[in-house]
Order: sequence, then structure tokens, then C-alpha cells
Amino acid sequence: MKYEKLDAAAIDTLLTERRLWELARDGAAISRSFKFRDFGEAFAFMTRCALIAEKLDHHPEWFNVYNRVDIVLSTHAVSGLSALDFKMAEAIDRLTPAD
Amino acid sequence: MKYEKLDAAAIDTLLTERRLWELARDGAAISRSFKFRDFGEAFAFMTRCALIAEKLDHHPEWFNVYNRVDIVLSTHAVSGLSALDFKMAEAIDRLTPAD
Repeated sequence: MKYEKLDAAAIDTLLTERRLWELARDGAAISRSFKFRDFGEAFAFMTRCALIAEKLDHHPEWFNVYNRVDIVLSTHAVSGLSALDFKMAEAIDRLTPAD
Repeated sequence: MKYEKLDAAAIDTLLTERRLWELARDGAAISRSFKFRDFGEAFAFMTRCALIAEKLDHHPEWFNVYNRVDIVLSTHAVSGLSALDFKMAEAIDRLTPAD
């Protein structure tokens, strides 16, 4: 297994660095919602996220309607959160420097 | 208003041509779930759907996790289904001739 399941203390620490993300699914996932000007901007963002996903070989669960993108990250192999989720969240955050 | 709300009889007729789509939300939407080989194929499909969405100026509500894409179509302006939803469903179906 490439990544180990993080415990609550480790998650708390990592969340202080990713303050725009929230715990979801009883601590088994993190989520963040993004808003853009329109669908085109939202999908451009999704395309950049898709490239990150392939690069990290880690894939989001995500929902889009018009200018909104909701992303949920978790690591199925550990039934919870791993360092990979926070690595991906950080890479995604870097796409939206305005926040 | 560009499109009028379809009544149940019209929806039934249109659904016979779009047999892989199902009524959702008490008849206010149609949905279809797609499976692909992997995330790359799923996202390539989503990119083609995004181009259709911009061309028709009509946008899906959709969810993706790995190789699965769930699409829900409805027309907010009529609080239900319009001809535009079926036009979009038809265009999306054309992307997956294998089905």
C-alpha cells in the first residue's frame, strides 16, 4: 500500500494548512466547493484537476452544475484519508490562487 | 422563453427514442449513467459533453468518480423537462455508439 490511513490528529494538522477544505463522511473524506464565473471557467478548472488526478493516479469524486464544482477526496484503499488526499487538495488549491 | 415545459405524454414519446435514459426527480429530469474503461476515457467523454453543453447553451448536472459519469438533465427555466433536454441527451448518446 502506497499510503497509510491518517489518524485524527494528523488530519487536524493537515487541515490547518488546507483551511478551505472540510471534513466529510465522518472524517473519511475532505471536500471543497468552488464557484466560477460560468460553465466554461468551471470546466477549464475541472480539466486542470483531471490532469492532476492522472499525474497523482488519484481521482476525485466530483459534481458540477453550471459554475459550481464540488470535490470530495478520499482514499478507497485505506477507507479514509491518506497523505495523497492532502497532496491533491494542495495541488487543486494552487489552481485557484484568488481564494 | 426558448423552450416550453413538456407534458407527460410528450416526455413518454421522447423517452421511447432515448431508451437508455430514465425519468428522475418525479419527472422533472432525465438521467443516465455511463461507464468507461478508466478515468481518462470518462473525462474525455465529459470534455465532449462540455462542448455540446456550450454549443446548446444548456448545462448538465453531473457526477464523476473514476470511470463512472452520471448525468442529469433538466430545464430550470421551466422547472421540468423541455425539448432541449432531449436534444442534449440525443447528442450525448451519439458520443457512445457502442451502447
